[in-house]
Amino acid sequence: MVYLDQAATSFPKLEEVKQAVMRAFDVAGNANRSSNMDSSRLIFETRRNIAQFFGLSDFHRVILNGGNTESLNTCIKGILKEKDHVITTYAEHNSVLRPLYELEEKGIITLTICAPYLEDIKKHIQKNTRMVIMTHSSNVTGEIFDVDLIGQYCKECGVLFMVDAAQSAGHIPVSMENIDVLCFSGHKGLLGIAGIGGFCVKDMEVKPLISGGTGIDSFNPQMPKAYPEHLEAGTQNIVGIAALNAGIQYVQSHQKEIVEKECFLLQKLYEGLSGYVEFYSSLENSTPIVAINIPGKDSAYVSDLLNYKYGIVTRCGAHCAPLMHKHLKTEERGIVRLSISFQNTIEDIDFVVRAIQEISNDY
Amino acid sequence: MVYLDQAATSFPKLEEVKQAVMRAFDVAGNANRSSNMDSSRLIFETRRNIAQFFGLSDFHRVILNGGNTESLNTCIKGILKEKDHVITTYAEHNSVLRPLYELEEKGIITLTICAPYLEDIKKHIQKNTRMVIMTHSSNVTGEIFDVDLIGQYCKECGVLFMVDAAQSAGHIPVSMENIDVLCFSGHKGLLGIAGIGGFCVKDMEVKPLISGGTGIDSFNPQMPKAYPEHLEAGTQNIVGIAALNAGIQYVQSHQKEIVEKECFLLQKLYEGLSGYVEFYSSLENSTPIVAINIPGKDSAYVSDLLNYKYGIVTRCGAHCAPLMHKHLKTEERGIVRLSISFQNTIEDIDFVVRAIQEISNDY
Repeated sequence: MVYLDQAATSFPKLEEVKQAVMRAFDVAGNANRSSNMDSSRLIFETRRNIAQFFGLSDFHRVILNGGNTESLNTCIKGILKEKDHVITTYAEHNSVLRPLYELEEKGIITLTICAPYLEDIKKHIQKNTRMVIMTHSSNVTGEIFDVDLIGQYCKECGVLFMVDAAQSAGHIPVSMENIDVLCFSGHKGLLGIAGIGGFCVKDMEVKPLISGGTGIDSFNPQMPKAYPEHLEAGTQNIVGIAALNAGIQYVQSHQKEIVEKECFLLQKLYEGLSGYVEFYSSLENSTPIVAINIPGKDSAYVSDLLNYKYGIVTRCGAHCAPLMHKHLKTEERGIVRLSISFQNTIEDIDFVVRAIQEISNDY
Repeated sequence: MVYLDQAATSFPKLEEVKQAVMRAFDVAGNANRSSNMDSSRLIFETRRNIAQFFGLSDFHRVILNGGNTESLNTCIKGILKEKDHVITTYAEHNSVLRPLYELEEKGIITLTICAPYLEDIKKHIQKNTRMVIMTHSSNVTGEIFDVDLIGQYCKECGVLFMVDAAQSAGHIPVSMENIDVLCFSGHKGLLGIAGIGGFCVKDMEVKPLISGGTGIDSFNPQMPKAYPEHLEAGTQNIVGIAALNAGIQYVQSHQKEIVEKECFLLQKLYEGLSGYVEFYSSLENSTPIVAINIPGKDSAYVSDLLNYKYGIVTRCGAHCAPLMHKHLKTEERGIVRLSISFQNTIEDIDFVVRAIQEISNDY
């Protein structure tokens, strides 16, 4: 199998991550609750590493949960209030759009959707604009957006800035300097396993989406005021946290090699496919995603053929990003997304290039 | 280490579960999304096994998520509506109470809290009672409540019946015959790993708490209508699902041995501790939990001593069940909870009995 669906989840899982998971099996008891403290210690260490990785000063404001979708829902529904105006972009995933549509439909917020660039966002800032929410990098095309510049502008306007780093974290540097809320996935570029993610939030109130036991303050009818417990009800996913911790440490200590390898493979992929496909993405300013179609063919047909005939795993269709596909005019046929990582090899790239050339020539 | 905190999370993790996790590492791509279908197949199989385990006819109505707390929040907030009256009990965990308090505070529901027995519940049924929500077994004392009888009564009254099976599933049979919504944890009696759980829901609408990508129906601004996708936004925790599937299969094929071993160990524990401690639980009609205090001593002191001097892991304090502790008049000192499973040995029981006898005699 040649795996080119790294933007969905990293594969193969690193030996370091597997080992961390195996060690986590031996951690007995639950954090904040059991008389055994091993679990609490591991979570403490992970939180500290994540805060350091994203440049957040207070590690108590790193919230760990079931994934990026839970993070985005928690922050969107827990920060926004009656009469807030929100700006988001057509590059967003449904995990941003659907929670926002929900609040809009309930009449809580008003919503503007524009292009993911500073000049467009500027045009739509209103007096009651409370927040700009956008992805750091498109999950369809890989295009990187200038969240640093946009964040700076938001800061000047007194508008909160929330970033979805699902596709960027681990592939390119992500700094919270100009970001108020950063949501991340633990199993993509950060190399952990599915079922773990979280968010970093600067000093503001986020209402819990999920309430329950926290192991502290049990006689309080509401969730404890203290962070992170305020936003972490229920048993922590200790295996996922161990995996994420190992993944982040790997990324931190191999950052240069990861970037160089991914840039190299991405360039080779573009070179090999050039002339055979339509591109919806470009080599410059991109995470390691190539978005293509073969002229005259549906994306599902090509993706299936790549899988069954060549054993190449990709993702076709709409990638849960409907507005991006409308923007690219690919609602009907979708796009074949080839997403790679430093774990792919030049042989993988050569193989997929030959397969796509063959499909393109054959029909 | 002697681990007597099985009600928090099962330990050690079974070899079968570890192997399933290791195999899940090799499952590439995400369910419903990737051109590789391995992940979808594993989830399908797990859903079918869970439906069979709990006696639910339609496996599409098995929802997998981050755990029991997420399940309870989703069902409480997603089923209850304006002006509903809800009955719950003092035996509930904060994962039931806090979401209910939230809805009560917002003026959405009215709430009655009573004893977890049919005669008490009967007294409080009103014209607008929409749902009775209760635990199958206390996480503090292990007492098993007659959910079959209460469920039957609810059915007669046309009231929905929701059961929290966190403490019962895997230890005693759980059948959905008279239950409309069953929430479960994947890592306690069902022997999976933390970070996985779910719920089974009969034919009714549950509004999603978390919305986002589902891999299908991407151009719909709302979550797809089809179950389970309606309630499963975001990447599935494939490692957790694999672990839960392995755990449930183990429970199914060892049910008799598990019950016999747990009854035997529980009896030995009661015999050994008798005369040395105050009991808040009883041998009869109980999951494998013994709730005690040593006369004159705070539960935290005893639990800490058991840990540091003897290497025995237990749980003290309030167990996120404030009303149960009020009922038992143990708000101040808490309770030392010894929770066992078939994985404990008679040597574990002898060791903890001697330790507690020693602490009780020494002071």
